[in-house]
Amino acid sequence: VVDEARAVRNIERMQHKAQRAGALLRPHFKTHNSHAVGRLFRDRGVRHITVSSVEMAEYFSRDGWDDITVAFPVNLRAVECLRELAARCSLGLLVDSVQLVERLVAQRVAGARLWIDVDTGYGRTGIPVADAGAIRDVGEAVAAAPGLELAGLLTHAGQTYDASGRREIAAIWSAALDGLTARAGELAAAGFGEVGVSVGDTPGCSLVDDLTGPSEIRPGAFVFNDLQQLRLGSCTADDLAFVVACPVVAAYPERSEVVVQGGAVHLSKDSVLDAGGDPFYGAVMDVADGWSLVDPNDARVVSLSQEHGVIRGRAQALQGIEAGDLVHIVPAHACLAANSLQPAPTTTRSDS
Amino acid sequence: VVDEARAVRNIERMQHKAQRAGALLRPHFKTHNSHAVGRLFRDRGVRHITVSSVEMAEYFSRDGWDDITVAFPVNLRAVECLRELAARCSLGLLVDSVQLVERLVAQRVAGARLWIDVDTGYGRTGIPVADAGAIRDVGEAVAAAPGLELAGLLTHAGQTYDASGRREIAAIWSAALDGLTARAGELAAAGFGEVGVSVGDTPGCSLVDDLTGPSEIRPGAFVFNDLQQLRLGSCTADDLAFVVACPVVAAYPERSEVVVQGGAVHLSKDSVLDAGGDPFYGAVMDVADGWSLVDPNDARVVSLSQEHGVIRGRAQALQGIEAGDLVHIVPAHACLAANSLQPAPTTTRSDS
Repeated sequence: VVDEARAVRNIERMQHKAQRAGALLRPHFKTHNSHAVGRLFRDRGVRHITVSSVEMAEYFSRDGWDDITVAFPVNLRAVECLRELAARCSLGLLVDSVQLVERLVAQRVAGARLWIDVDTGYGRTGIPVADAGAIRDVGEAVAAAPGLELAGLLTHAGQTYDASGRREIAAIWSAALDGLTARAGELAAAGFGEVGVSVGDTPGCSLVDDLTGPSEIRPGAFVFNDLQQLRLGSCTADDLAFVVACPVVAAYPERSEVVVQGGAVHLSKDSVLDAGGDPFYGAVMDVADGWSLVDPNDARVVSLSQEHGVIRGRAQALQGIEAGDLVHIVPAHACLAANSLQPAPTTTRSDS
Repeated sequence: VVDEARAVRNIERMQHKAQRAGALLRPHFKTHNSHAVGRLFRDRGVRHITVSSVEMAEYFSRDGWDDITVAFPVNLRAVECLRELAARCSLGLLVDSVQLVERLVAQRVAGARLWIDVDTGYGRTGIPVADAGAIRDVGEAVAAAPGLELAGLLTHAGQTYDASGRREIAAIWSAALDGLTARAGELAAAGFGEVGVSVGDTPGCSLVDDLTGPSEIRPGAFVFNDLQQLRLGSCTADDLAFVVACPVVAAYPERSEVVVQGGAVHLSKDSVLDAGGDPFYGAVMDVADGWSLVDPNDARVVSLSQEHGVIRGRAQALQGIEAGDLVHIVPAHACLAANSLQPAPTTTRSDS
């Protein structure tokens, strides 16, 4: 269930930040993976999006989106789909080696904008930002590639998710941006024309006040937020816009537990840690009168099986809940929870 | 990708064990959630199945299965679906309170067999096995319910998954079976007629030599097996029958890492622990010449994002792997991985 008013507020807040910074907002749609939620963005003027797979690009293309960056290293086994997508929309792709550019050319992928994937410390994909030579080599390969265009340099500084607070997240943001800007400046000076700089993860984009610097930002999770963002301070409890409505199938007052159909296949096994270092998988949103988060110390999802979720809590927090009721759960990680739901989230409501 | 010959061997082995023990094999189909894999069972004479949700019951009903137990506490929000299912197949449901039985009657759910869900130490759902009075109360409520029939007592001793080896798993199996059998005997003596005893988790059913005792067993994971089963000793590497074929999108020989499109949404965040206590999410199956598991010490999935999987390994194990290749990953938990795949696994092959 999406609280439409909250999601819209989250979208508009990020739009204003991007506008103030003179950056294009290219939101990452992997968070919701939903036509309905995508339209909330489109209704507010967003035209450029990010996705994380070719399948997701096709899904949003079917709903009329025509400027899409696949922020995931090119899957060479899907070149046929990429050729089709490039023919009907402005398609951005990620490359991090000369060889990959050459293989795209050999496979006749044309009409795409190529972003050079740069690793600014997350250590997952991309060319290390210090390796100016390798970045320039890929830039030259793109410039020489018929039908392909260099869009710029792109990074995902996902290490913000392991940071301990606003100051550390801001430091990661600045370091990533500085590194990318330096490399982009070198390329521009070497005659590569306009070289974009694309950054963005929700913690950085939410917690850094002034986003001036990059040409575009690509946060995703901010539209819904979740317990991970709440823990990082990227949002308040009032910004939580997505819950999973789970049927209660058993109540055990003597154990202070309630069991719901809401398991690993619905919420995912991603977790946040409580003060004692124990993982939990979700918290309870009271939706009786507007949305109000129940303190996770009073009730939280303490274990998940494939279909079962076990909520443990103080007697008062679980009082009166019985089989047949619905409990609304805020997941630890909204992207994985929303992705697991079939069909994609479409129900929207506006309560707060 | 399913290795059909291995899956069939796993099925036939469990069938023989059930036959020797005089127990009905009612396999849990949540593991594969696939019509194609279900037919491997049907082709070998299996007619009775277990599922873990109403949706899954409907899915298999559409492929002609007509004797289905939903081994999950009744979802009262799905009574309309339950009524329809009960009308067209032999439907087993789980109850653990008098109130729930009364609500099923009030909602006119008729024609179902009711299993009393008994907790034999897992602590998730069900009436504690020591509470003979509560079990009998539910039995009496079922006996008094028009159109509903008492099937017997059912347990899932999932604590076997936390056990340290064959001896401990066998002890859990015996204790659960003894408890259930005692309660069933009391009900039978009190005139409840034939009271079934349904048990079964893959570790117990795989590691206990003689399964004599229950009227039926409900293991699921044995058809595929996975790293969790391998770690428990419930299977050998040659019994691993399911892998996720993941496109390689980047190779970083200098980091001894390969990145695949095979992330949390494909493999799930379930993990097993290595000797040092660190979690990992998958191992590599070499499929070049029959299926051969690469030692997880030489290559394993060390981290997962939504779409990314990072495989780290010894240089030799990853040598020659490059973008565009496929890597076949054995998941930590096959049930969650298979469930996440859309469409359901249908490709079968027979290599070993």
